[in-house]
Amino acid sequence: MVHYPVYNKQGKVICTAVTNLDIHDIARCAMTFGVRAGYIINPLDSQKELVRKIIAHWREGAGALYNPIRKQAFERIEVRASLQEVIQDISRSHRLPVKTVATDATQHKKNISYNHMHELLYEGPWPYLLVLGTGWGLAREVLEESDYILAPVEGVLDYNHLSVRSAIAIILDRLTGNR
Amino acid sequence: MVHYPVYNKQGKVICTAVTNLDIHDIARCAMTFGVRAGYIINPLDSQKELVRKIIAHWREGAGALYNPIRKQAFERIEVRASLQEVIQDISRSHRLPVKTVATDATQHKKNISYNHMHELLYEGPWPYLLVLGTGWGLAREVLEESDYILAPVEGVLDYNHLSVRSAIAIILDRLTGNR
Repeated sequence: MVHYPVYNKQGKVICTAVTNLDIHDIARCAMTFGVRAGYIINPLDSQKELVRKIIAHWREGAGALYNPIRKQAFERIEVRASLQEVIQDISRSHRLPVKTVATDATQHKKNISYNHMHELLYEGPWPYLLVLGTGWGLAREVLEESDYILAPVEGVLDYNHLSVRSAIAIILDRLTGNR
Repeated sequence: MVHYPVYNKQGKVICTAVTNLDIHDIARCAMTFGVRAGYIINPLDSQKELVRKIIAHWREGAGALYNPIRKQAFERIEVRASLQEVIQDISRSHRLPVKTVATDATQHKKNISYNHMHELLYEGPWPYLLVLGTGWGLAREVLEESDYILAPVEGVLDYNHLSVRSAIAIILDRLTGNR
C-alpha cells in the first residue's frame, strides 16, 4: 500500500497520511488469502513511527491479549520508506527478481486480466508484489515501471471510486479464484 | 449493516458502535455494484444521529462541495433503527415481500452458493436485502429468520476474520459476477 508517490484530487503528486483501518484490513485480507507480507509504504518518519506503534499494539501490546486472531494477522505487516526498498527486500529474500503488479482505477494498454494473472501467480517461480495506491491513485511512473497493470475492478454501474480497502479485498479474492 | 443484534467476542448479544469508514465503503460499494440502497441499522438514537450527521456532511455539507463523487455515493445511504423496519420499508416500496440474504463467517446447512444467489437475483421479481453483521457477527435469530444464508467467504488459508468492509466488497463482487 503506497502513500507516496500518489496523486491528490488535483492530479499533483503527494504523500498521503496513513489510515488506521487500512492496516487492519490489509492484515486480515493477507491472512485470508495467503499473502506472505503486507507492506505499508510511507517515506515520512512520523508516519512510519505511527504505523509501527499500531503494529506493536496488536502484535505485543494490549491488542495482542485482547484479540490474538488480530495479532496473527498483524504479524504479516511491515513498514517501508519506498517501493524500491520493498522490491529489493523481496528480491533478496527470494533470491529472484520480484514481479510488480500495479493497480489503477482506469484502463491501460498493458492491462492484464484477473484470470491471466491468476495463472501466472500459480505457475511460479517468481515472487509477485501487488501495488496499490492511496489518495487518487499511483503516480504514472509507478504504473510505467511495473511489470503488469491489473485491469480495473469494474462493477455494474459506471462508478470507479472504491476505497483502497474494498479494492484490495476484491482483487485478492479474484486473483486467488477460490469461489 | 446491522449493529444490533450482533455478538461480541464472548458470544453475548450486543449493540456495536458505528464506524465512520464502514459507511463510506458501503456507499462506494453500493454505487459500484448497483445496489439500490445501503441501510445502517442501529437502535440507539445517539448512533442514528451520528450517522445522519456524517451523511449530511457528504450529501449537503462541506463534503459535498469537496468531493461530489462521494456525495453521489452517500445518496444511497439510509439509517434505520431495526432490520424489521428496513424489511417493511423495502417491501412497501416494491409492493413485494423482500427476500433476506444473511451472511456469516461459518458454514450453515442452508448455505446458498454465490452462483446460485446470483441467478436468483437476476431472475426476479423479488427485492433482495443483503444482511451483514458487525462485531462478531449476526445473532442466531437473524440467521434463522432469513430466507437465505450465503456461503462464508473463504480464502486460501483457514482464517475467516475479514472486516465487514472487506466482506461487503467481496460479496457484492461475487454476486454481480462481473469479472
